[in-house]
Amino acid sequence: MTELKDLQLIIDEAVKKLNYPAQPADLYEPITYILSIGGKRLRPALLLMACDLFGGDINAAIPPALAIEVFHNFTLMHDDIMDNAPLRRGRETVHHKWNQNVGILSGDAMLVEGYKLMMQVDDRILRPVMEIFNTTATAVCEGQQIDMQFEEQDNVVIGDYLEMIRLKTAVVLGGALKIGALIGGADKQDADLLYRFGEQLGIAFQLQDDILDVYGDPEKFGKQVGGDIIANKKTFLLLKALETANNTKRTELESWLSKKDFNAIDKVAAITSIYNDLGIQNDAIAAMQTYADEAFAALEAINLPAERKQYLKDFADDLLVREK
Amino acid sequence: MTELKDLQLIIDEAVKKLNYPAQPADLYEPITYILSIGGKRLRPALLLMACDLFGGDINAAIPPALAIEVFHNFTLMHDDIMDNAPLRRGRETVHHKWNQNVGILSGDAMLVEGYKLMMQVDDRILRPVMEIFNTTATAVCEGQQIDMQFEEQDNVVIGDYLEMIRLKTAVVLGGALKIGALIGGADKQDADLLYRFGEQLGIAFQLQDDILDVYGDPEKFGKQVGGDIIANKKTFLLLKALETANNTKRTELESWLSKKDFNAIDKVAAITSIYNDLGIQNDAIAAMQTYADEAFAALEAINLPAERKQYLKDFADDLLVREK
Repeated sequence: MTELKDLQLIIDEAVKKLNYPAQPADLYEPITYILSIGGKRLRPALLLMACDLFGGDINAAIPPALAIEVFHNFTLMHDDIMDNAPLRRGRETVHHKWNQNVGILSGDAMLVEGYKLMMQVDDRILRPVMEIFNTTATAVCEGQQIDMQFEEQDNVVIGDYLEMIRLKTAVVLGGALKIGALIGGADKQDADLLYRFGEQLGIAFQLQDDILDVYGDPEKFGKQVGGDIIANKKTFLLLKALETANNTKRTELESWLSKKDFNAIDKVAAITSIYNDLGIQNDAIAAMQTYADEAFAALEAINLPAERKQYLKDFADDLLVREK
Repeated sequence: MTELKDLQLIIDEAVKKLNYPAQPADLYEPITYILSIGGKRLRPALLLMACDLFGGDINAAIPPALAIEVFHNFTLMHDDIMDNAPLRRGRETVHHKWNQNVGILSGDAMLVEGYKLMMQVDDRILRPVMEIFNTTATAVCEGQQIDMQFEEQDNVVIGDYLEMIRLKTAVVLGGALKIGALIGGADKQDADLLYRFGEQLGIAFQLQDDILDVYGDPEKFGKQVGGDIIANKKTFLLLKALETANNTKRTELESWLSKKDFNAIDKVAAITSIYNDLGIQNDAIAAMQTYADEAFAALEAINLPAERKQYLKDFADDLLVREK
């Protein structure tokens, strides 16, 4: 098994070799730019791992792995416009550095580039691979739309939230793993199980993200702790708190949510204290564990020796005890 | 040969049967909406014609024909945002009727739906068809970017303009025809010739559009006559006038172009009069004819009996003598 950091390095090198035309500069430079900002390259690394898991040649999986990374960054480019975000990974977003039209059109071109890369697989698996990619792309669009709707919506329940993060985040992990599995020669059943592993792991991963926003170590967590609280983001923690609070606590919580004028530190402290009183962290950890268990059960059911799967299990474990 | 209006009807019926999920409504309703606004369905009709030309089964070509129509409307949805256009074919644009984020995301989903439809071809031609689709999509993005740049650019020359309209408009006609040809069983050489026919015809078609903007019959032309002139759009006519005018005429022309405050009717009349003095209409017709000749030469070279190709020739002739 190639180590995660080596896989990430392989992706980083391959990203650098993606050579887009010089002209039109405003179409292609933003693609190179957003890809150069980096990130952890987890999605393409998962694709390579899945290929490796079934004894496939990692080199054959590099273009589709890049496809997943290009696709992921296309979604970031367009999401940043929709969220009006000035920064991404500490750097200017594309629509900010250039302008909004550049962000839209360059993103469009990037999605097409993703398709071109994804097509670089054997004819034997071209259609199933493209079908997974299509399904994944549609799900991500649906997830993003639902996420935007949540901002305007008062009656979001936890089930809706879990479905939203499954669509917006988790299916890309599942899709990457399943495509890697097909390239590696897995049969349909094992490929589906690995998809399930990725999807459930993805939901657990997002729940972990929700938890870290409140309970992460500010030294290690890359973002401002409490950012979700300040923005009234409907995370698992907030929805669970609204669901389980008694009238007094709920009124207190809702009063903070409706405040237009507030001290951010006070708001984070107050809502965290409500979460603490309600034991929300434990609820979130329990939910996360449920999805992690589902993921591990799917992995276990794959028709391969346990020691061969240990690597992915360790990877998932690491992902879920991360502090950033 | 099925008549054009029957082909358009086939497309209209098939578009109506495209059933998108009810939810998320703001993702899928805009797709149904923009497709329902109509348009002439020329691109998908060309795809069906090409399939028919080589004796293929039109029914097998319907999903890819829809793919071209869905793709074309995706580009309109995003272009309308970039152009800040409130209306399209007399109806509210998507970003106007909903909002900008809906326009971006729904467009993204639409591009993916285009890919799903385009994949509905035999395994035998799946890869070449998808490659043409990818190439076409990239070209359209490049063309749109160059078109936007032209607005800011002072030194646009006719050659750049012709390349822009080739990328933004003409390649879709070429791509649609080539895909139809492959579905119909054409060999590579004939498919390439039909691509060339569509590409050159597409350039001629756009030049005709430029001419109609100024010289079209206001009764028959769907848009405001002189719209390009009012907006200082760098059409073939304007670029040719700037290129051929003597100093006096050029100064007069540039003075109109730089006016911020003007009566639209006066401006259209004045610039049209300059065009008339310079004989620009004839230059544009000559250029259009050159591309039309190229198109017909490519059609002629296709290895089929002349009478079989007459229908496409008549279609192209009709297209280029249209008044709207």
